Amino acid sequence: MRHLILTTLFLTAALAAAGQANNRESDPLPGERSALSVRASQYPRITSDHRASFKIKAPEAKRVQIDLGKKYDMTRNGNGEWTCTTEPLGPGFHYYFLIVDGVPVADPASESFYGCSTMTSGIEIPYPEGDTRFEPTDVPHGEVRMKRYYSTTAGDWRRMFVYTPPRYEESDETYPVLYLQHGGGEDERGWSQQGRMDIILDNLIAKGEAVPMVVVMLDGNTRDFNSELFKDCIPLVEKTYRVKTDRNSRALAGLSMGGIQTLNASITHPESFAYIGVFSSGWWAKGRNGQANPDNEAYYALLKEHKDEFNQGFRQFWFSMGGKEDIAYQNCRIMLKRFDEIGIRYTYFETPGGHTWPVWRESLYRFAKLLFKPITANH
Amino acid sequence: MRHLILTTLFLTAALAAAGQANNRESDPLPGERSALSVRASQYPRITSDHRASFKIKAPEAKRVQIDLGKKYDMTRNGNGEWTCTTEPLGPGFHYYFLIVDGVPVADPASESFYGCSTMTSGIEIPYPEGDTRFEPTDVPHGEVRMKRYYSTTAGDWRRMFVYTPPRYEESDETYPVLYLQHGGGEDERGWSQQGRMDIILDNLIAKGEAVPMVVVMLDGNTRDFNSELFKDCIPLVEKTYRVKTDRNSRALAGLSMGGIQTLNASITHPESFAYIGVFSSGWWAKGRNGQANPDNEAYYALLKEHKDEFNQGFRQFWFSMGGKEDIAYQNCRIMLKRFDEIGIRYTYFETPGGHTWPVWRESLYRFAKLLFKPITANH
Repeated sequence: MRHLILTTLFLTAALAAAGQANNRESDPLPGERSALSVRASQYPRITSDHRASFKIKAPEAKRVQIDLGKKYDMTRNGNGEWTCTTEPLGPGFHYYFLIVDGVPVADPASESFYGCSTMTSGIEIPYPEGDTRFEPTDVPHGEVRMKRYYSTTAGDWRRMFVYTPPRYEESDETYPVLYLQHGGGEDERGWSQQGRMDIILDNLIAKGEAVPMVVVMLDGNTRDFNSELFKDCIPLVEKTYRVKTDRNSRALAGLSMGGIQTLNASITHPESFAYIGVFSSGWWAKGRNGQANPDNEAYYALLKEHKDEFNQGFRQFWFSMGGKEDIAYQNCRIMLKRFDEIGIRYTYFETPGGHTWPVWRESLYRFAKLLFKPITANH
Repeated sequence: MRHLILTTLFLTAALAAAGQANNRESDPLPGERSALSVRASQYPRITSDHRASFKIKAPEAKRVQIDLGKKYDMTRNGNGEWTCTTEPLGPGFHYYFLIVDGVPVADPASESFYGCSTMTSGIEIPYPEGDTRFEPTDVPHGEVRMKRYYSTTAGDWRRMFVYTPPRYEESDETYPVLYLQHGGGEDERGWSQQGRMDIILDNLIAKGEAVPMVVVMLDGNTRDFNSELFKDCIPLVEKTYRVKTDRNSRALAGLSMGGIQTLNASITHPESFAYIGVFSSGWWAKGRNGQANPDNEAYYALLKEHKDEFNQGFRQFWFSMGGKEDIAYQNCRIMLKRFDEIGIRYTYFETPGGHTWPVWRESLYRFAKLLFKPITANH
């Protein structure tokens, strides 16, 4: 095997002959290669009606499945290849697993992502014809930068990902900043890899629909998010990048676990951010004992006490939800009912899709358009 | 499963209960978590004598192996967990596969990398005490930037990765540039992910052992590398970044397949680069028919014709090899013998380790120290 690995590394001619060769030789299933298929692989494939088809060589396996939320049993052919084709899938990014004799793993034929607290696969289903909001287009492109720093909160080296907008390099301007957090089981890579945040921002900025901004993505896996954000991250960002430092030029948003972190950080530090985005999230309605969650009452008391300050100070207090099928739907609904009772103003946006990346891309697209602009009428 | 994925994404409390929970509950094998183990996983682990141990839950599998070049059969315990411990491994990064009933996949418990033309796993074995050349240390850190661009050569959107040195942001200086290429079956991510190139440069620059430089890493998977490099990449880099544009401020290097691309590009465009680095590579001594390779004779003729120009113009013509066990050893040896016959001067460096990333990290470390400095005595 060492010899096989090494030869494969060295011989460009041998690349085509590596693991995926069987896929090339037999007639491929219908459709086009997925945008996330690795270079040498013809699978996964996407049909014109947005079904995904998979093929994997596993002559010794007893059972092979694809898990896309729904599990699909694969069928073995005489060559020891297993195939399946899914139902039509919604546009955008979906996590999936390959399951070999009961072991869920990433599909080696498709790009891997850190999600679901493990290395998992992703598949990208095309958006409808003409919807290029989430695709690279011929517009000026910003950069996503990987920045290492020593976190005093974590006591270790960490990375942040920083989007700088087109023309950042050439200009002398200072920019507003959006701090943007991933969900549980993901990390600082989530928004730029699964979320395509740079493409969303590039496209919005090119159309003049969003203000050019810097976007900072932290590793939110920490016991003290506020410390990581306020003590380690923001000072470093403001020292390193040409960013504005007033609260009207700072936004904080996050999805799921990152949404709760956003809520907690913004309510306890309303002086820090004027724009708040909470995607597919809400405070836990129930505590660990199944009873109403007493931890939240302190937050609701804070909202009540500072109601006018928050209503005037938050230029956007923005919530989105992936429809009733979003697992955070009930918690969010219960929380926003409390907001209504207290008299806290907010904006609510709902789009179908559940607790998934297509919903979060759409949320970022909508939220980013509202940032760092005068207060709009619907607020 | 959808419910499980989604709940896992949402519930931070549930993360510990996900796939790896069994690892936490049972007594772990000896050693420390690998630096590349995903957050929730206690495996792989590295013992103090640099053995790697693995554990995976696979109650339905018939046979589970770890393939690190050498294959290790894993042993099943009563809980359906499979474990194994390897021989001591050399320091640095090693690719490996998990094999479940004959299917080689990436280990979901460890970071995945694009290598061997597929998604594969990597393990990082600690360097000897005191050797911090390849570890993040408390020095100023540069950035690695992901830049999207439309490649006219490929007719598609591509990405380049660009390292900018510490203080690039604050200064007005222009910097020399190293163009640095990955090997076959890898891509533009290889040098910053498997290779830790930013850490190597950060550490060298902090000690004053390397000149601050920009490093550009292209996707070398193309039928026309010269076109991608000279038509698409270099003009974009020189327009976008504060870099020097004279040949004495430009270097080109690559490993394995990238080494051949480096040789071909530099010999045909000696006006473009003064520093050439070829790691674990050499022109193919034999063609596809097994006979002496006629394609190379044109290159040797070029070297002969421009011998003096090359000898004076290349401030470094630098070759490295991972010892006799490097699969490129013979090809390189045959090629350098021809260089000797023609009278082409070069520098040769050899370190044990074979055709592997530890050798290429060491090669970059040595080569980067020589760049953009006056010609040294050993040349």
